[in-house]
Amino acid sequence: MDYRKIKDQDEDTSQDDIEDLRKKPLSGGLMTNVSSSSSSVNKSSWKLKSVVTLSLTLLTSSQSILIVWSKRAGKYEYSVTTANFSVEALKCALSLAALSRIWKREGVTEDNRLTTSFDEVSVYPIPALLYLVKNLLQYYIFAYVDAPAYQILKNLNIISTGVLYRIILKRKLSEIQWAAFILLCAGCTTAQLNASSDRVLQTPFQGWMMAIIMALLSGFAGVYTEAIIKKRPSRNINVQNFWLYIFGMIFNLVAICVQDYDAVMNKGFFHGYSFITVCMILNHALSGIAVSMVMKYADNIVKVYSTSVAMLLTAIASVFLFGFHLSLAFFLGSTVVSVSVYLHSIGKPQK
Amino acid sequence: MDYRKIKDQDEDTSQDDIEDLRKKPLSGGLMTNVSSSSSSVNKSSWKLKSVVTLSLTLLTSSQSILIVWSKRAGKYEYSVTTANFSVEALKCALSLAALSRIWKREGVTEDNRLTTSFDEVSVYPIPALLYLVKNLLQYYIFAYVDAPAYQILKNLNIISTGVLYRIILKRKLSEIQWAAFILLCAGCTTAQLNASSDRVLQTPFQGWMMAIIMALLSGFAGVYTEAIIKKRPSRNINVQNFWLYIFGMIFNLVAICVQDYDAVMNKGFFHGYSFITVCMILNHALSGIAVSMVMKYADNIVKVYSTSVAMLLTAIASVFLFGFHLSLAFFLGSTVVSVSVYLHSIGKPQK
Repeated sequence: MDYRKIKDQDEDTSQDDIEDLRKKPLSGGLMTNVSSSSSSVNKSSWKLKSVVTLSLTLLTSSQSILIVWSKRAGKYEYSVTTANFSVEALKCALSLAALSRIWKREGVTEDNRLTTSFDEVSVYPIPALLYLVKNLLQYYIFAYVDAPAYQILKNLNIISTGVLYRIILKRKLSEIQWAAFILLCAGCTTAQLNASSDRVLQTPFQGWMMAIIMALLSGFAGVYTEAIIKKRPSRNINVQNFWLYIFGMIFNLVAICVQDYDAVMNKGFFHGYSFITVCMILNHALSGIAVSMVMKYADNIVKVYSTSVAMLLTAIASVFLFGFHLSLAFFLGSTVVSVSVYLHSIGKPQK
Repeated sequence: MDYRKIKDQDEDTSQDDIEDLRKKPLSGGLMTNVSSSSSSVNKSSWKLKSVVTLSLTLLTSSQSILIVWSKRAGKYEYSVTTANFSVEALKCALSLAALSRIWKREGVTEDNRLTTSFDEVSVYPIPALLYLVKNLLQYYIFAYVDAPAYQILKNLNIISTGVLYRIILKRKLSEIQWAAFILLCAGCTTAQLNASSDRVLQTPFQGWMMAIIMALLSGFAGVYTEAIIKKRPSRNINVQNFWLYIFGMIFNLVAICVQDYDAVMNKGFFHGYSFITVCMILNHALSGIAVSMVMKYADNIVKVYSTSVAMLLTAIASVFLFGFHLSLAFFLGSTVVSVSVYLHSIGKPQK
């Protein structure tokens, strides 16, 4: 369950006046997991957007399945902070690998050089900092709500992302798309309903406040990452990722020192790592890169839809993999989410 | 619970080539419960549509509350068939009363005379017959599904009404309105979820088939009633109601003879009637008339929305009246229904 934290940290990365990139031809090489579109740089951005979105959806779905798998094998033996650090380090390495290929092919240009100005790099630590605050709050919210209720409250992220996307990125959603977004939140929550869900209604005022603040922090981190990445549309995404992940590594190093210093010193950095741990780290790294790609070539709204649909796919896959039973609430929630996706796609604001 | 049958029978009443009445100025007097709009005959039909829709919503809400009230007082002592008959008789009487007022004011005209042709009247028994078949099926479906699961399956009526409305009345719903209709069905079902709802997923194939057939019968009866009423737009609604209710009386008389002949003969027609029974009969009669009005001045889609919203209002009123607790599922379902109502209203098909 703690491993979830990795996911939370991956999903951020930020702002000012941003131009919509989606209609420009794309420049710069792409990561391995989306290499199929790497050659089609000059093809429609729609294809690229679809590929990164699909990658994110599939990676996020398999993420949760890996978590269930690793849980079945017993408790985590490794320290979560080192796993988080490994994910950031792997993402950094993958970004550098992609960059070195681009340098060989295109040479070092203004857009793909690694060196940067303070002005450019100064905003990169902010999303990581926001998540740090959010993760700290996570320890306190459990004084007011239990874990299943927290899972339900996390759906507030959907609404906060939509609101902040509108306010900060100043991008418009049509009335229908707003309606679709409310439906997405209601549908996801419905799909997660179980016998103990009603306890969330007993959440005290402080719990609600903290949940709302956490949703705002999470939404703000996501929207801020999009603003950072889109502020320089021609800048190579791998350079932008590199700097995001460098700060991710730094923050996770601090977390290791604070939380797991003794364990790492006594048992070693990679103590307790199993094959499944390595799979999870690989998966989280690829999902993290997919999130960045979605931020660059699509937006936070697409990211939210992608991860929501992934949640449903995970549940369906779990039926076959773990013999889970799907509830009526799941079918109803899935229906609402599907209608929401449809409404979002047909409800594009008139230009 | 049996008293529900009254409601089912009220809500039907039929077809061919129908013109949209909504934009024409309305002629003919209205019933007592919508007398406020009776004087505004020449005002916008929008106002009239709103009044009848609101009346239906409020009457349907209080209907369920009266049912809960009467249940609290113990079991029903009266025979349900006589209550059904009384409702039909009362509706007939109210239609005649309204007509006599109109005759005094306007004189007897082609549109408000009670006498009719065989051609006009021959279709009026059909909705009542459809409901009779549906009510008969109701006895058999309980061999496959239990009562709570049946409550859930009844939401299929929403979809069947939409589909038949499109096929039979050839009226168009926009893509958004179709999406809204699916949401209405999902939202209503979500709002009704409880711990035992998942049992509906174990419904055997025969149960599903019967539920679908019943939904089609119910939807067909509703759509057919609308077709009958709208086939002659200038015909006074009270005359149309009179003939619908006459056949309602006849069918219920047959039901009394078959089911409760002995009880009525030994204990009298009104045996076991209490104040609450009289209130329920009055309420059902007024709701029945409101349904007809909605069919005349609005349509089956509005009727479905109206009764769905009524279901939510009933639940909210029950919190104050009976100390019921609202579940998280109820809030989620209500949110989805509200968004559905909004989408339906903004999603009007382009002419």
